[in-house]
Amino acid sequence: AQSGITVYGILDAGIARETGGAEGSVTKLATGVQSGSRLGFKGQEDLGNGMNAHFVLENGLDLDTGKARQNGALFGRHAYVGLTTSAGTINLGRQCNPIFIALDGIDPFETGFTGSATNLMSIGTARTNNTVSYATPKLNGLSATVMYGFGEQAGDSSLGRTIAFSVDYAAGPLVGTLAYDSLKVTSFNTLKEVLLGASYNFGPATVHAAFETEKNDIGGDFRDFLLGASVPLGQGKLLASYVKKQDRSATKQGGRQFAVGYTYTLSKRTNLYSSYGTIRNELAATNVVGDASSGGSAPAAGNGSRALAVGIRHKF
Amino acid sequence: AQSGITVYGILDAGIARETGGAEGSVTKLATGVQSGSRLGFKGQEDLGNGMNAHFVLENGLDLDTGKARQNGALFGRHAYVGLTTSAGTINLGRQCNPIFIALDGIDPFETGFTGSATNLMSIGTARTNNTVSYATPKLNGLSATVMYGFGEQAGDSSLGRTIAFSVDYAAGPLVGTLAYDSLKVTSFNTLKEVLLGASYNFGPATVHAAFETEKNDIGGDFRDFLLGASVPLGQGKLLASYVKKQDRSATKQGGRQFAVGYTYTLSKRTNLYSSYGTIRNELAATNVVGDASSGGSAPAAGNGSRALAVGIRHKF
Amino acid sequence: AQSGITVYGILDAGIARETGGAEGSVTKLATGVQSGSRLGFKGQEDLGNGMNAHFVLENGLDLDTGKARQNGALFGRHAYVGLTTSAGTINLGRQCNPIFIALDGIDPFETGFTGSATNLMSIGTARTNNTVSYATPKLNGLSATVMYGFGEQAGDSSLGRTIAFSVDYAAGPLVGTLAYDSLKVTSFNTLKEVLLGASYNFGPATVHAAFETEKNDIGGDFRDFLLGASVPLGQGKLLASYVKKQDRSATKQGGRQFAVGYTYTLSKRTNLYSSYGTIRNELAATNVVGDASSGGSAPAAGNGSRALAVGIRHKF
Repeated sequence: AQSGITVYGILDAGIARETGGAEGSVTKLATGVQSGSRLGFKGQEDLGNGMNAHFVLENGLDLDTGKARQNGALFGRHAYVGLTTSAGTINLGRQCNPIFIALDGIDPFETGFTGSATNLMSIGTARTNNTVSYATPKLNGLSATVMYGFGEQAGDSSLGRTIAFSVDYAAGPLVGTLAYDSLKVTSFNTLKEVLLGASYNFGPATVHAAFETEKNDIGGDFRDFLLGASVPLGQGKLLASYVKKQDRSATKQGGRQFAVGYTYTLSKRTNLYSSYGTIRNELAATNVVGDASSGGSAPAAGNGSRALAVGIRHKF
Repeated sequence: AQSGITVYGILDAGIARETGGAEGSVTKLATGVQSGSRLGFKGQEDLGNGMNAHFVLENGLDLDTGKARQNGALFGRHAYVGLTTSAGTINLGRQCNPIFIALDGIDPFETGFTGSATNLMSIGTARTNNTVSYATPKLNGLSATVMYGFGEQAGDSSLGRTIAFSVDYAAGPLVGTLAYDSLKVTSFNTLKEVLLGASYNFGPATVHAAFETEKNDIGGDFRDFLLGASVPLGQGKLLASYVKKQDRSATKQGGRQFAVGYTYTLSKRTNLYSSYGTIRNELAATNVVGDASSGGSAPAAGNGSRALAVGIRHKF
Repeated sequence: AQSGITVYGILDAGIARETGGAEGSVTKLATGVQSGSRLGFKGQEDLGNGMNAHFVLENGLDLDTGKARQNGALFGRHAYVGLTTSAGTINLGRQCNPIFIALDGIDPFETGFTGSATNLMSIGTARTNNTVSYATPKLNGLSATVMYGFGEQAGDSSLGRTIAFSVDYAAGPLVGTLAYDSLKVTSFNTLKEVLLGASYNFGPATVHAAFETEKNDIGGDFRDFLLGASVPLGQGKLLASYVKKQDRSATKQGGRQFAVGYTYTLSKRTNLYSSYGTIRNELAATNVVGDASSGGSAPAAGNGSRALAVGIRHKF
């Protein structure tokens, strides 16, 4: 009677120590540090001839309070239905921006831990409402995704419009991605981001690198650089990255982050982790060391931000 | 360990083009056009002697945003527990009004698509909180349901009180229904609706017809007429209906809707659809072509409303 | 594919008649009278060597409206992930206060029906966000739990801090508990509660008794007494309790509650129930006869409160 529905999720909680913020040093129960806590429902129906219909409904939650994340949306992480044919996959609903998926695949911290690349690098709105996406089949490791998000804002249905795509390669030791995201913020300001990233698994270690440009029509102009490594070590993996956000305008909003982490595997589904991240901010910047879910309070302009976390992540 | 729980749902999304509204022509990602998107949990326990205990918890959601519908209620579509014995079924909780179920069963569009009969015909509050319902067993195709909804409004627990029933017949090619709904809106105004409907399956086509009266104690007085047809055609079904809302008071709030639609079956659980609906409004009317979930913006008084949709519906 | 997830719940609804409140006598659809209505997801992964990882996500809901309880939190009853080893269990997230679990285990009404001990006795905040708990293994019927809740309130991260524990004994006919709860409400006011309770099953009847002190730093000083009995009778159980809240300060906020109830078993998972509770309030007290989920409106100071309920509870 369950029609092949899968109930799945990830729950992640720990203790974090955040320093440098306006509230001073804070020790707290942390949730969703390595990966955002979630509960999902997904299913797939085989329609024959290589076709299938499928869906995902994925809730994001804060495990420390039991509340829904994503501004209280019930299925704020994913909510879509789609069709796959031999010509590719079309999905309709609320989906992750391709540039978010792209950075998540390159960042050694997978945009989590107290060292997520997203602390300094932009991923558009992360997730977008009212979207149609099309993904090509994978051919020799190569695939591409395009996504269009209707604006649907009251008064001007073009505001909030998102145009995004990524071209992805994954074969053998090499992963490469080129991603683009364009969001019409106001009628005279569109935010545009381009990300180029790659990782290469040498065996004893995987090296990760990314380059991103962020520009808008009211003077914003950033260049971001990421260099990282992940190294299998003992019953786990050592992670490290250096991220630099370079502000090419006069606003001095840039910064540099250095982070290290370690995951300790208890099983295929469960691991312990610890990570430490520190940001040095430029003169007017208030960048914060956040994780997959949240971050500490913003520092005074130009001050640093630091966070240390230890916790557990359980998949089901 | 699952105690026979069934997780089920319907997800429906597409593209809609709405014209005639105050916001002009709008193209948008549509959700819940043919049927409202939902995720439900239901179960039944056999208690012996023909008795069972059962429950339904059904969430309604907007697939374009992942948010809960029904003003954010978690289980806003259905939430009840009940007992069935040889003498009938009693349910307690939040339930659909019998007149809604009755119209849903007669309307060729099943109160969905861009041609739902509910665009012009009333179904009470659709769903009511704080209800007790009793349904007779089905005997020779005949059954009846009565529902009482406690008002429970602060200050006056009689406000919001709902009294409703339906008498239903379904056997062979004939479906017939008589439904009543009474809602105490204020201490001196009760809204009363009576619906009479039937459909007859001639084989090559099913013909649908309904008549409704809507009256309240402050002058409201409408008569609604529906005539429709559904015709199996190719790998799907052609649907059409004409609905007229006649305003018998001086307020000129009536209108006429004409709608056509086609569903294309991919499997028992999945279909594609397209539908078009158009409303011509009386002098002061602002009726809108909506679907199973929402509608465009209201037109200026007396202006028309139109909507075209194409999409996919997947059951699980 | 379900990874051993269990979907479970309790749904409880009935009719209640509440008298004595400011709104006068009210008859309403009651929800969660015997037990709060809920839908949960839980799972456990065996990690070998007697270790396991586990989680609980439990939503509380009002069955009369389908809305989430606990101020709309999605998983407001429980939300935690944890590890069990031979040295005990650590859980992280939102959890029940040990003093709530302790009183729930002693009260013949299990803190439900229209006679819950919580109508007059305090259980801290019932559930606390941002908690870490540690529970010892059970040894010869003896176990202990400690819980710490980070305050995490904006501006002062010590506010809301909770320190709590319980020592529990359960073997043969005897259940005993000592529980403590301390909540830092403001920087100069901490609320402290100590509960001592026991029940003994003589065979034809179980006797229940509890004693609690509630003190804060701004003059609050209560002593509470509970005496109760539960008696297997026919196809069910008869329940009764007397609770006295003695105000030792000058504020005259005390009161006395007497309650009786009967559960009628339809199956292991389903029962009918009826209960009646009445509170006599001291001069300035407005204590209300509530149940596992809610209560009537508060009476005028010093007036009594009464509630009668009949309903059904279904577990799945």
